[in-house]
Amino acid sequence: MLENSSRSEAVDFGKESLIKHLGEFFKLHNPSSLSGIENDASVLSFENQLVLTASQLFMEHVHFDLGYFPLRHLGFKIVAAAASDIIGMNGKPSQIRINIAASNRFSVESLEEFISGVRYCCERYQIDLIGLDMTTSATGLTIATSITGTATADHLVKRDGAKESEIICVSGDLGAAYTGLLLLEREKRVFEVNPNQQPDLSGYEYILERELKPEPRLDVIQELAEKGVVPTAMMNVKDGLANSLLHICRNSKVGCTIYEEKLPIDTITFETLKELKIVATTIALNGGEDYELVFTIKQDDYEKVKNLKSISVIGYITTETAGKNLITNDNCQIELKAQGFQPGAQN
Amino acid sequence: MLENSSRSEAVDFGKESLIKHLGEFFKLHNPSSLSGIENDASVLSFENQLVLTASQLFMEHVHFDLGYFPLRHLGFKIVAAAASDIIGMNGKPSQIRINIAASNRFSVESLEEFISGVRYCCERYQIDLIGLDMTTSATGLTIATSITGTATADHLVKRDGAKESEIICVSGDLGAAYTGLLLLEREKRVFEVNPNQQPDLSGYEYILERELKPEPRLDVIQELAEKGVVPTAMMNVKDGLANSLLHICRNSKVGCTIYEEKLPIDTITFETLKELKIVATTIALNGGEDYELVFTIKQDDYEKVKNLKSISVIGYITTETAGKNLITNDNCQIELKAQGFQPGAQN
Repeated sequence: MLENSSRSEAVDFGKESLIKHLGEFFKLHNPSSLSGIENDASVLSFENQLVLTASQLFMEHVHFDLGYFPLRHLGFKIVAAAASDIIGMNGKPSQIRINIAASNRFSVESLEEFISGVRYCCERYQIDLIGLDMTTSATGLTIATSITGTATADHLVKRDGAKESEIICVSGDLGAAYTGLLLLEREKRVFEVNPNQQPDLSGYEYILERELKPEPRLDVIQELAEKGVVPTAMMNVKDGLANSLLHICRNSKVGCTIYEEKLPIDTITFETLKELKIVATTIALNGGEDYELVFTIKQDDYEKVKNLKSISVIGYITTETAGKNLITNDNCQIELKAQGFQPGAQN
Repeated sequence: MLENSSRSEAVDFGKESLIKHLGEFFKLHNPSSLSGIENDASVLSFENQLVLTASQLFMEHVHFDLGYFPLRHLGFKIVAAAASDIIGMNGKPSQIRINIAASNRFSVESLEEFISGVRYCCERYQIDLIGLDMTTSATGLTIATSITGTATADHLVKRDGAKESEIICVSGDLGAAYTGLLLLEREKRVFEVNPNQQPDLSGYEYILERELKPEPRLDVIQELAEKGVVPTAMMNVKDGLANSLLHICRNSKVGCTIYEEKLPIDTITFETLKELKIVATTIALNGGEDYELVFTIKQDDYEKVKNLKSISVIGYITTETAGKNLITNDNCQIELKAQGFQPGAQN
């Protein structure tokens, strides 16, 4: 991914010229962006709106492998991932700051590739780049994002509002991104053993796209707004459905029951996992980077969402003492658990 | 710095328990902080205020060396550095988010050391920690900060407002932090050659503190506000005075003349640089991490600031065509230049 027909050294550009050069790829969309990337701090103005902020850190060799992750897709993905943190609170993302640490392995052209992906996602979701800074890395590429968005007080949704007997919904389908990642890793191993063998990834486009170019679900929160539905609790699904749902339960002091048969899993995801001899339900519950939304709604709102194609009902909220449970396809009740933090693993 | 009598493995804690544990070291100070670290995004509310945001990325082996940089000081410094970006626009810092990527070399105790420094600086400047996230690093420690602050429209100061014949001021003294760093690096080399030799750093406390525990100049912008002075242009001095002043000139489309004899250099800085056989003026102009302020004021405001101990007048603004000049002690005029971006060097 780092090879280009021409290569300009970042050192020849000078830090400030390079930032200015890369910044020229962007224009501002939001009236709240009073300044762009030109100052140490950016100036924003939000009248009568709540301001939402979120930040993420992406490390090469931990969160992405440039061996199979094109830089342009990486640029798109880091903006999409940041946006999904704001969307997960029913907010609208509006500004992003990006700090890049790159070793001298990265040419100006490779940084432009990355930035073109950032721009593509920024344009798509009307997010303004208001900060861009570069520094040096001893090894590899590190990217930090800091995103700002807005919500009105009556539309903001946190994790703590779920109540007994409310309905649990999830957007899109689950486990596709992680399945795409497993496939890319398999192909990388094949390539390492036999560099002449070209990877055959046709038929797998959907799951690869879910891993390499995820779309945050701004469309879902817009659909809910159009239907007049404000979820009672919501969270972005980035570390697996189980993790997000357990967060909602813990914060709302409730329990939940979800059904294995209701979990939305795409056919390609399912077939690929079968081929890889992995249980699809495990990945739907624990696979990362779906960037879908899990949320709870009042029973009265069910009629408003039941025909929305982007939403699946997967279960309901119970009392805290009833626990957090999954009802399997063979009608067993098992406790819902999330995978823990493993330093050295992808987190 | 990583050795402790007891050591708890981060992996045993689980990511979320660890974040919760470290988050318990903090309480909120600002009414604009409607939520703390508990959600993907933080909720802020600013009425009729401009919102300022800034972000920074700190990489081990590039921006700090844990061989001589205590983790507690590092925690303090990253908050101080972030705050200085807001203060450099005449704003008041109010909230910070911190993302940490740590390899499994770091125990819970070492992360607590770091967090205790973060807390000390947050308490000192009444900054609320509203985001704390942790992830894995393949090598070393990486820290990303994202800070929010406020300013009113009539007090916000950018880089583009300097006009001909205005006065150039700088706060505190220059070059001390970089001189402290040179000293620490020298002692590290001595220690590597002879591990039994204890470093003798007595007498150097001031410059070491400037490197290890810099104080952002919130006091200076408060003093200016008390005197009724709003600078016409301002910038945080983090990559050397020359760099910041050239930014102001470029953005304001003006030139400048500053005097070598007026550059504020502390006696210990001067003597240490003499001992190291380095010209003090070079370090005052180009040494990084001073976190002082350089700003321009109208001539009419001179009377209001001339007795402030924390401020030195170092020159004046000229027309753009007159260039950016330094008048040396032997009365030569030389062009003011900033050091460029060097991947692999500290930036």
